[in-house]
Amino acid sequence: MSTQEQNHNRPFTDDELHGLYRAIYERRDVRSQFLPDPIPSDVLVRLLNAAHHAPSVGFMQPWDFIVIDSVAVRESVLAIFEQENRKAAENYTGDQGARYRSLKLQGILESPINLCITCNRSRGGRHVLGRNSVVEMDLFSTCLAVQNLWLAARAEGIGVGWVSILDQQQLAHTLKLPNDVYPLAYLCLGYVSEFLDQPELQAKGWRSRLPLDELVHGNTWGEGLGNEELQAELANKKVW
Amino acid sequence: MSTQEQNHNRPFTDDELHGLYRAIYERRDVRSQFLPDPIPSDVLVRLLNAAHHAPSVGFMQPWDFIVIDSVAVRESVLAIFEQENRKAAENYTGDQGARYRSLKLQGILESPINLCITCNRSRGGRHVLGRNSVVEMDLFSTCLAVQNLWLAARAEGIGVGWVSILDQQQLAHTLKLPNDVYPLAYLCLGYVSEFLDQPELQAKGWRSRLPLDELVHGNTWGEGLGNEELQAELANKKVW
Repeated sequence: MSTQEQNHNRPFTDDELHGLYRAIYERRDVRSQFLPDPIPSDVLVRLLNAAHHAPSVGFMQPWDFIVIDSVAVRESVLAIFEQENRKAAENYTGDQGARYRSLKLQGILESPINLCITCNRSRGGRHVLGRNSVVEMDLFSTCLAVQNLWLAARAEGIGVGWVSILDQQQLAHTLKLPNDVYPLAYLCLGYVSEFLDQPELQAKGWRSRLPLDELVHGNTWGEGLGNEELQAELANKKVW
Repeated sequence: MSTQEQNHNRPFTDDELHGLYRAIYERRDVRSQFLPDPIPSDVLVRLLNAAHHAPSVGFMQPWDFIVIDSVAVRESVLAIFEQENRKAAENYTGDQGARYRSLKLQGILESPINLCITCNRSRGGRHVLGRNSVVEMDLFSTCLAVQNLWLAARAEGIGVGWVSILDQQQLAHTLKLPNDVYPLAYLCLGYVSEFLDQPELQAKGWRSRLPLDELVHGNTWGEGLGNEELQAELANKKVW
């Protein structure tokens, strides 16, 4: 066994474990706290490389990364957002409508970098290992890359916001994507004035966190856990 | 500002940052190295809670967790895998076919716990904030939960393998899922004899890792990066 193998198989130290859990619990979907400070190139490359080391079906690595700093491109994307958001706002009336309109839902121009993570649906040819039963596995793999980047960004002190209120066809046209390439995630990246201590939609009363123990089933849907110790741990769970 | 806020806004220490990157780079899709040792309840709850703290569109939290230890349920799932894998194998001929058949692609019975992470497509009602343009955002959110769990598991010394060669309708039937609930990820979890030092499909010559710098575009598809420093960093990238 090589030194490297021994090294990567050693248990995580408490600090290393804590670092992973900090990133998971302190990550936020950032829209309002972006600072204009540039992201150094070495830091940005660490984030992209973290995304690139996500799992992918059949080792397909279907992702590409479009790094956007052009104000013109970002203004085009913002126009797509505003059009879609007007349509979305029509779904909410009364108090909920007022609250919806008061929410800031993107930081496209305030953040110094936008990043589109795409999924090339034809990469790897017709028969990608593990993708025969669920053709969407390439999209799902690309999501895993998004989360790697999101967590790495948090650990580097960088906020990320996913802008999902976009017409995907218009976005693909703006970014000049080939036909087989889907713009899976449009992200805003930048240093932040602060990371909020809870998700903004929770803090603003839009929706509450669900109790974890109500989301866990045993063996089949709706069945209780046979394991009483596990049930007790769930009821008594503590955030790290 | 409260003590907690000050605390969660302090920069990551080098060890904490290293812990996050270790989990990202040393995570593997495990099929062959599972040990039968049980996963303690407190550890399993930490993994589920990590998943539950993923980002979700409109704070929808569309996931549920089916913890499967029943051998009968796992044998049913294995039968679904075997049927689908026979169909998949027909796509490969000659040397590639022989190589495909030699790969171990699941650890359903060898791992002590199987976990199905589902997506409840109707959670949160008809109009989920941020889901008006891309209805699949609930599925994508659930993928982010999968990756949180996968990384937390790695940091805890637990291997995870995603079994994607399954007929989703048969799987949903076996797990007795309601109509609106999609079985997004079927995972095998357990301690391992070792974590391989590179992805198994890479080690076995099935596919190579793509060079990161070929996957990065500037502002629009196929355009170079205007930023020469960033281009140089990409070409000269080092894994953490």
